[in-house]
Amino acid sequence: MKKAIVLTGITTTGTPHLGNYVGAIRPAIAASKNADVLPFYFLADYHALIKCQEPERVRQSSLEIAATWLALGLDTSNAVFYRQSDVPEILELSWLLTCVASKGLMNRAHAYKAAVADNEQSGEHDPDKGITMGLFSYPILMAADILLFNANKVPVGKDQIQHIEMARDMAARFNHIYGEHFILPEALLEEHGATLSGLDGRKMSKSYNNTIPLFEPEKKLRKLINKIKTNSLEPGEPKDPEGCTLFSIYQAFATPHEVTHIRQRYAEGISWGEMKQVLFEHINNHITPARERYEALLQAPEHIEEQLQEGAQKARDISVPFMQKLRKAVGISRISA
Amino acid sequence: MKKAIVLTGITTTGTPHLGNYVGAIRPAIAASKNADVLPFYFLADYHALIKCQEPERVRQSSLEIAATWLALGLDTSNAVFYRQSDVPEILELSWLLTCVASKGLMNRAHAYKAAVADNEQSGEHDPDKGITMGLFSYPILMAADILLFNANKVPVGKDQIQHIEMARDMAARFNHIYGEHFILPEALLEEHGATLSGLDGRKMSKSYNNTIPLFEPEKKLRKLINKIKTNSLEPGEPKDPEGCTLFSIYQAFATPHEVTHIRQRYAEGISWGEMKQVLFEHINNHITPARERYEALLQAPEHIEEQLQEGAQKARDISVPFMQKLRKAVGISRISA
Repeated sequence: MKKAIVLTGITTTGTPHLGNYVGAIRPAIAASKNADVLPFYFLADYHALIKCQEPERVRQSSLEIAATWLALGLDTSNAVFYRQSDVPEILELSWLLTCVASKGLMNRAHAYKAAVADNEQSGEHDPDKGITMGLFSYPILMAADILLFNANKVPVGKDQIQHIEMARDMAARFNHIYGEHFILPEALLEEHGATLSGLDGRKMSKSYNNTIPLFEPEKKLRKLINKIKTNSLEPGEPKDPEGCTLFSIYQAFATPHEVTHIRQRYAEGISWGEMKQVLFEHINNHITPARERYEALLQAPEHIEEQLQEGAQKARDISVPFMQKLRKAVGISRISA
Repeated sequence: MKKAIVLTGITTTGTPHLGNYVGAIRPAIAASKNADVLPFYFLADYHALIKCQEPERVRQSSLEIAATWLALGLDTSNAVFYRQSDVPEILELSWLLTCVASKGLMNRAHAYKAAVADNEQSGEHDPDKGITMGLFSYPILMAADILLFNANKVPVGKDQIQHIEMARDMAARFNHIYGEHFILPEALLEEHGATLSGLDGRKMSKSYNNTIPLFEPEKKLRKLINKIKTNSLEPGEPKDPEGCTLFSIYQAFATPHEVTHIRQRYAEGISWGEMKQVLFEHINNHITPARERYEALLQAPEHIEEQLQEGAQKARDISVPFMQKLRKAVGISRISA
């Protein structure tokens, strides 16, 4: 039986934080150990260029993300782990799809429409003000990411279901014109969409500047946890774990048994100070081994690069012959006798 | 002194005809022998996919165009003659430019606006009806074609000046964000824009279906020339060479001395039948040696491919290191210690 291909890209614009870990990295790494699945995970550095024009940040983020996934035990003997920009066939397929994608399809993309709505609300005369072609056309690049490997399933949040529909649309058009080459991918609505609260109680997100970086050094991790907002209940007063940021983070890293125990401590009126200490120790214990591997990897970046090159090779073992087939199908292959 | 780089792409969707030869191919081949210039000529097969979804036609056209240019004596020891799809850095640069190009710039492209106007005139509800992202975004691909080799001059017709302006805009934005990497290219308004009349007296053009293929076999060439429309003046009646298709084609292939002689024959009332015979023989003599080389090349397509591969190698000797520099500039280069 052929393994199902599951594909996920990670945009290289930030430092992995606890929210990324719980919501995306941890489930993906668990999936990489599932022998029924062939996971493709890639550093989406071409996508990063759409929203980030700070080279140092893109570079640093690529390094940190790759080191994070490897440190957390990504099984690269099963998963294909590569950098998008190491697979030139992605941009080539993106162009082939560009030639079949209708402009109207892009007009309807949520991200583009939201940017236009922002312009209109702020009274801009030009609805496209400040919008780049990167923002406008990235659903095509995303379709190429997926279709190049004929991925069966693409784990997505609700807001990205449209991208998979668009990829299906382009795949179907291409198949219609040039013959059946692509599998129509399916969106896999993420069950692990559990979001973590950040320092200020809102969803932990780089854009709210309220994150706790996953591999923050011990001292800094303690400092950040101490900064988490709580209410003003005194020690000894019973506390409600629901809606409490400290509890929600604890829960994401704890066994059901541990969670039951902490609920009990809340009912008994554990002080916020003590709960912060409990949370810090719990997380710190949880991540210390991986953090040590992470730091060692950052000291030996050539090892990270080696892993990415191996991944790129595995990806290209598939993409190169497939692209040759596609080139032939559209009429741009080399001349032969 | 550094040679000026002059770049021209030939879209691979048709068979070269006399009009192409006179207007574009002949001057380009002459330029390839100018030692002060480094010409880049390429088969624009990615561009072909925008308007042609017939693989066999794109394939055949690539073959015919390459064979034509080589048969006519393109100096590949001076010129860099390559197939666009053999230089993956073109699409990579195209993506980098996509991320800096504003959507508003594309909204203003003539070809896109013309397509929208067509829709509006035909009462279409959706102004983007039938418009692909290929049509919408090809000015970016064109900019990448040019900027990847830091071409100084791009010979264009009037209708394409805008594309060079757009390429300059993208180059300047990129330079502004990521440092000075690109030379701003200049449009070289084609002096050789002399158009040839076709069978029906209108401009010779594939879209009018009135062309005379350049390397049509002798018999067919004669047949086609006999089909050229003339007026109803009888033999012996003096004829006006101006506005006469036969004369205009003759002129494009003749020395001033020969032209003077034919003007005289027109004044003396040469019959259309005789003039067609004169024209056929003149063109046939002119092209026979090249046609023989052309036919030999079509019999040995591997030789054409070899030349294209040599050209691609020369192009990539430039584009690969340049793209490495650009990757570094935007932050997507490999991880190094």
